[in-house]
Amino acid sequence: MSLIVMKFGGSSVGDAERMKRVAKRIVERKQAGHSCVVVVSAMGDTTDDLIDLSKQIYDGAPPAREMDMLLTTGEQVSVALLSMAIHNLGEQAVSYTGWQSGIFTEDVHGKARITDIQPARVLNALEQGNVVIVAGFQGMTEAGEITTLGRGGSDTTAVALAAAIKADLCEIYTDVDGIYSTDPRIVKVARKLNEISYDEMLELANLGAAVLHPRAVEYAKNYNVTLVVRSSFTNNEGTNVKEEAVMEQGIVVRGIAYDKNVARVSILGVPEKPGQLAKVFMALAEVQVDVDIIVQSGVLNGSADFSFTTTLADREKALDAIESIRGEIGFREVTSEVNMVKVSIVGAGMVSTPGVAATMFKVISDLGISISLVSTSEIKVSCVIENSNLTEVIQSLHTAYGLDTTEQAFVGGPQDRR
Amino acid sequence: MSLIVMKFGGSSVGDAERMKRVAKRIVERKQAGHSCVVVVSAMGDTTDDLIDLSKQIYDGAPPAREMDMLLTTGEQVSVALLSMAIHNLGEQAVSYTGWQSGIFTEDVHGKARITDIQPARVLNALEQGNVVIVAGFQGMTEAGEITTLGRGGSDTTAVALAAAIKADLCEIYTDVDGIYSTDPRIVKVARKLNEISYDEMLELANLGAAVLHPRAVEYAKNYNVTLVVRSSFTNNEGTNVKEEAVMEQGIVVRGIAYDKNVARVSILGVPEKPGQLAKVFMALAEVQVDVDIIVQSGVLNGSADFSFTTTLADREKALDAIESIRGEIGFREVTSEVNMVKVSIVGAGMVSTPGVAATMFKVISDLGISISLVSTSEIKVSCVIENSNLTEVIQSLHTAYGLDTTEQAFVGGPQDRR
Repeated sequence: MSLIVMKFGGSSVGDAERMKRVAKRIVERKQAGHSCVVVVSAMGDTTDDLIDLSKQIYDGAPPAREMDMLLTTGEQVSVALLSMAIHNLGEQAVSYTGWQSGIFTEDVHGKARITDIQPARVLNALEQGNVVIVAGFQGMTEAGEITTLGRGGSDTTAVALAAAIKADLCEIYTDVDGIYSTDPRIVKVARKLNEISYDEMLELANLGAAVLHPRAVEYAKNYNVTLVVRSSFTNNEGTNVKEEAVMEQGIVVRGIAYDKNVARVSILGVPEKPGQLAKVFMALAEVQVDVDIIVQSGVLNGSADFSFTTTLADREKALDAIESIRGEIGFREVTSEVNMVKVSIVGAGMVSTPGVAATMFKVISDLGISISLVSTSEIKVSCVIENSNLTEVIQSLHTAYGLDTTEQAFVGGPQDRR
Repeated sequence: MSLIVMKFGGSSVGDAERMKRVAKRIVERKQAGHSCVVVVSAMGDTTDDLIDLSKQIYDGAPPAREMDMLLTTGEQVSVALLSMAIHNLGEQAVSYTGWQSGIFTEDVHGKARITDIQPARVLNALEQGNVVIVAGFQGMTEAGEITTLGRGGSDTTAVALAAAIKADLCEIYTDVDGIYSTDPRIVKVARKLNEISYDEMLELANLGAAVLHPRAVEYAKNYNVTLVVRSSFTNNEGTNVKEEAVMEQGIVVRGIAYDKNVARVSILGVPEKPGQLAKVFMALAEVQVDVDIIVQSGVLNGSADFSFTTTLADREKALDAIESIRGEIGFREVTSEVNMVKVSIVGAGMVSTPGVAATMFKVISDLGISISLVSTSEIKVSCVIENSNLTEVIQSLHTAYGLDTTEQAFVGGPQDRR
């Protein structure tokens, strides 16, 4: 008999029918002898509907404190209804808001971090034989103010709660039946991973894999919570996310991620003198441009070229910031490119296996495609290329690293991100 | 500068436009120099929509605890949006749920009574210059369970909060612009009352006047909170409800109420022996039939007739209960009548003015209408008559007691009852 935290996202409880299906799943788990704590998000479009309401009332961005008061009702509705659905199946259940579950956060609205969990009430209710249903995405400050955790908040609630009650497992139910070696919509022979390490998952999550929120993975890593990502629609085994993940024989790359939200900015003909690079990136930091990969070319005839990537939304802001220091820097030209994509290979074994990056470069150049920027870390290599080449690059890399499988991937509807 | 509690019902905040109008009204009050605490109900049909959702999930009556978790989200949405609407007008506001406002209740779900209010947080927020918006209809038990107060709950929240913070005034905003001498939809010349005493208001509220909930009036009486009932759509002065209300010269009846939810049950030919009446009403109490007026006729030839009134919904249950003790009692016949109405005159001065009841009986009999049952208390007389005669009876009584006025009544939309 295990103590399990189960997390269901908004689309898994999008209407009464889905709510009942989730309840059935929980009751099966309970009747198999497990103690279950369930974390649930707001139903389907509830959050968007509430945001729409607020827009009818307030011109601009409403006060964040009141927005949290408003949005947290969405999860409260979900937990109450899910508890009813479980009662309807003849099992005992009790629903709690974030504050009732003892989830304390920083005094910040809209994206608070969990500071402490006091799980006495949850544990007590479990001991009395209840399924305990906890509202995800929300908490309370020491002063009794209601807060929300921001994007990926319900994942974080689930993981933090699992750590606090020392759960054996934290199951994240979603629309896909696990973590894949790459996006199964692009590569038909993508393989579902049985295991992946926290670090690899973190890289994949940050590099564009949308199934788990990076903050939740970080939390799981820090508290050593074993995560299982699995489908809320099938009984397929999911993917275990844990400290040490076993690599299959001969496989060194665990997964391939991509991110289309990339723009490249290049500053050409920058006269070489100390501190030029610092000036540019100070100017960008001042206007809060999100900078990812940075590359400086070699110096030629006393002048150099810089390139960096940023998000599509920040591109204009970046260009304006650089123009504003043209006199100070004295560069020749600033250019930018969109329609780029960042393709990344991730694998914990890379660091001890020579030639992994070289293989990536060779695969891409064999396709006749040029690499615009490169960035590496201990467990990943990222290349920025033209968007139009994405599919063939990912397919070729997938094959080259021995990831192709013969099984058919299960892909569900739109993914839960809250 | 006064400290004012303002209460707005669900139809007053039924959509974004109404919400904004209410916010404007509050800001005017605040800018006139008053400190304002606002109690608000769930928007329009929100509660019904949530109940519908629960019916899709649960077969039968859902667990009351979870129902309270579900329904209290309605007021939380209202307070957050109303606070935003006030911010949008440039004033400071802060919204609180029931538990955040320190409203403690009994450990009962669906119809808890307020046991204590700890208003430190509300007072603190007021001191900092905020309009404080409190969710009506809800509270928390000592153990941190969320509860609701049942019908008329938001009125009760407002009055109890006014008592706890020693407010100068508790304004109940509604769809009519005060308490009327009778229903202005029936009597065009009904007069709006400037003042009414708690006891009179209690009788009127219990006798069918839907503007204020009896429990709220009782609370106001016990804590001597001055209530003002006024329109949320006009600036007309409302009706003051207080301990001692001044009567106009020559007027002894304050108001005329009616209640159509009346059925008469008669048990005829009951053999006279001790305890017969007790047996009947014990049997009715056992099946929780709500009994109002009870009349026993004189004994004739060793047998008597009993009559009583009950609600339309309880009539069948009452007849069944009586049939079930036919053998024990030995009555000849049991009959029932629907299409009845109870008309009541209310006035604190009645007790010291002879002939008030006699006038009522005479007015009704002069119309050629027979009175089915009569009941009296110190400050009211009720007569049960046939429904079809309601309008002419009320109009005639209104004139006979000198209540007709020449002013036009303002009547709004459907009334708020929560």
